[in-house]
Amino acid sequence: MSALRIGVCGNGTVGGGTIELLRNQAALLSARSGRELVLTRIGARRDRDDCPALDVPVHRDLLEVAHAEDVDVLVESIGGTSLAKELVETALRSGKSVVTANKALVAEHGNELLALAEECNQSLLCEAAVAGGVPILKALRDGMAANSVSELSGIINGTGNFILTEMGAHQRSFDDVLTEAQALGYAEADPTFDVEGIDAAHKLSILAAMAFATPLNFPAVFCEGISAVTPADIQFADELGYRIKHLGIAKQHADGVELRVHPTLLPKDALLASVDGVLNAVRLQGDAAGETVYSGAGAGRFPTASAVVADLVDLARADTKPLHCLGVPVAKLEPQPILPMDAVSCAWYLRLEAEDRPGVMSQLASCLGAEGISIEALIQKPPKGAASTVPVVVLTNAAREDALRRAVSAIAALPGIDQPHCIRIESPN
Amino acid sequence: MSALRIGVCGNGTVGGGTIELLRNQAALLSARSGRELVLTRIGARRDRDDCPALDVPVHRDLLEVAHAEDVDVLVESIGGTSLAKELVETALRSGKSVVTANKALVAEHGNELLALAEECNQSLLCEAAVAGGVPILKALRDGMAANSVSELSGIINGTGNFILTEMGAHQRSFDDVLTEAQALGYAEADPTFDVEGIDAAHKLSILAAMAFATPLNFPAVFCEGISAVTPADIQFADELGYRIKHLGIAKQHADGVELRVHPTLLPKDALLASVDGVLNAVRLQGDAAGETVYSGAGAGRFPTASAVVADLVDLARADTKPLHCLGVPVAKLEPQPILPMDAVSCAWYLRLEAEDRPGVMSQLASCLGAEGISIEALIQKPPKGAASTVPVVVLTNAAREDALRRAVSAIAALPGIDQPHCIRIESPN
Repeated sequence: MSALRIGVCGNGTVGGGTIELLRNQAALLSARSGRELVLTRIGARRDRDDCPALDVPVHRDLLEVAHAEDVDVLVESIGGTSLAKELVETALRSGKSVVTANKALVAEHGNELLALAEECNQSLLCEAAVAGGVPILKALRDGMAANSVSELSGIINGTGNFILTEMGAHQRSFDDVLTEAQALGYAEADPTFDVEGIDAAHKLSILAAMAFATPLNFPAVFCEGISAVTPADIQFADELGYRIKHLGIAKQHADGVELRVHPTLLPKDALLASVDGVLNAVRLQGDAAGETVYSGAGAGRFPTASAVVADLVDLARADTKPLHCLGVPVAKLEPQPILPMDAVSCAWYLRLEAEDRPGVMSQLASCLGAEGISIEALIQKPPKGAASTVPVVVLTNAAREDALRRAVSAIAALPGIDQPHCIRIESPN
Repeated sequence: MSALRIGVCGNGTVGGGTIELLRNQAALLSARSGRELVLTRIGARRDRDDCPALDVPVHRDLLEVAHAEDVDVLVESIGGTSLAKELVETALRSGKSVVTANKALVAEHGNELLALAEECNQSLLCEAAVAGGVPILKALRDGMAANSVSELSGIINGTGNFILTEMGAHQRSFDDVLTEAQALGYAEADPTFDVEGIDAAHKLSILAAMAFATPLNFPAVFCEGISAVTPADIQFADELGYRIKHLGIAKQHADGVELRVHPTLLPKDALLASVDGVLNAVRLQGDAAGETVYSGAGAGRFPTASAVVADLVDLARADTKPLHCLGVPVAKLEPQPILPMDAVSCAWYLRLEAEDRPGVMSQLASCLGAEGISIEALIQKPPKGAASTVPVVVLTNAAREDALRRAVSAIAALPGIDQPHCIRIESPN
């Protein structure tokens, strides 16, 4: 079979890693694909030291790669959503398939781009967009093909997981660890995308679309970051048998889909609870396979390139047959209502400072009871030094978000009690 | 596209589950495959209550299914290696692809059967043969396609993992838990295959063949069961920061391949160490992706059927194009020397009873030192009651197996010291 000719646009971390992998693993890739994978063009707006110079034409105008006759597949690794979108559209319209690592692009424009890919009889694959080197999209598309997935949850942002892990291991503050993460290159100068959960929401929307065979719906993802989590929360959670992780969670209900990203208390014996540092992990609940968990490096030059090149092997093996990124053709995706957070139900962790006097705890319990929320566990610590308040932590049973919010407002209105800090609890199975 | 016509031979746990899944998930499977998956024949030597009766011809002579004109793919789920082999060969020669859950068949006759499949231009897939519902073979074949895998390790026998987990959680003896596992249906009346590691060795040989692109070599797998592990070992390991798991381990070295199944001390923070009960998990070390871990139900009616049907979807999507079970054509598999266990190096856990008198510990240390083996940690407990001996546990640094064996013989020859009980230690990364 003839070679698969590849044009890589973007020569940064992902593109450079892809170029290197294509070169270093050429023999293995050809054995596994049944044909050669050949790099024919590079699109790079500027030179970079960490991108190997090869005997391949380099184009400053990336759109030239999308038009090149000797390119069968374009790898989009330039990032962003404007030029990247134009580049992908141009490539598809020129009869090329596309592999991208760009979660923002897929999450925000995927419906349109996947429809265009089908119209052009081409493929658009994006394994590298979620959980880096972990082949989670292939697991959903192929390994779980016989399953209705009812829910999934994942640690899908390595920066956030690194920060929470460090905060917990060394009782350090969020700001302190964030500064270190920036120095280590784990976090951007503007860390908003990572720590506020936007990056995780991009990835969750892709996972949910595949799992539930529904169109991508990034704007509907509820998103809460980790900047309000304190070392004290991590410590209390630990005492109660939990770890705090920043999770993306998607659940299929009879009346719609839950899509949310937020800090979450997880029981220590849940597998995801042991996934620390910059690692990513995703847990799928399938009706036939039961629970399966996939973990590994969520970012980095070669883990991400591993996912990009796996997609290229996929395309090489499929020959000219288009592959469906989400597992089914776009026409088979069924739009589903997204449940408002008010209707979502989960157990809760509440932490607050209360005046150390009789009656306070019973008032607190009354506010919860008035909303039908029962208390599962409670920690009240002795006052620190001369402090007139004591820290109180409450774990509730499952409660709807709207009921919990009303109870919390009532609690905050009590004299001598601070506004509670609330974190959701997830108990798989 | 025309329907994929399926004949299922065997109507027990796996076959029955497959039939049920094909029926219950018909719409979803057809959306994901781009064509219908239709059950056209059942081969069953006898009726079973748990196999749904369908409007499909049932054959007592299974070979009729292998010859039937309206069968494109035969699912072999009868188990065993004699009739199963004949059935698979007949199906392949009759121009049908085969999906099997039969690890013994693939491990023992896979080279021959895969060559026959290629010769007949058909596929032979066996996702369900390893780790049940966990799509680990697809992860190796597709997700890790851009990686040289340098090593893998896995908990790939749920019965053994259940027994070790229970022994550790409740300080129960091996025999006691085995009896319970048999009552629960987790272990066979003759538990040899599970507890002596033969089942795990079957699966390891399949994983290693895929990971290293080398022919299946089940007879070369070193195999040690869990029946010698005691609750005391689990307790000591715990004190030292380890859990004991029955692992299959395969490593690629410059001069050959290591293939071994044995009880193993794993650091508690290794992800596999948290995989308890009947769960399975496999860890892959790839040169690009780094470490990835996959876990889930290793057995059971629907997890196994999930894997069988995923293979059927794979075949349906591939249309008539044969798929390579091991990721590369048989001709591309490179035979490799298997390293003798004597040449394998790892750290060791030794437990022994020694007389409680001066000089014993120094003699023990001398025996290790004489073989160049250094001591990493040591626990000596006070004697129990009036016992004249004390339990001693030693963790060594990495040592070659032959050196360790010599040191252990020397220790056993010392007056006042029992034959040490030895368990290998694995420290990923």
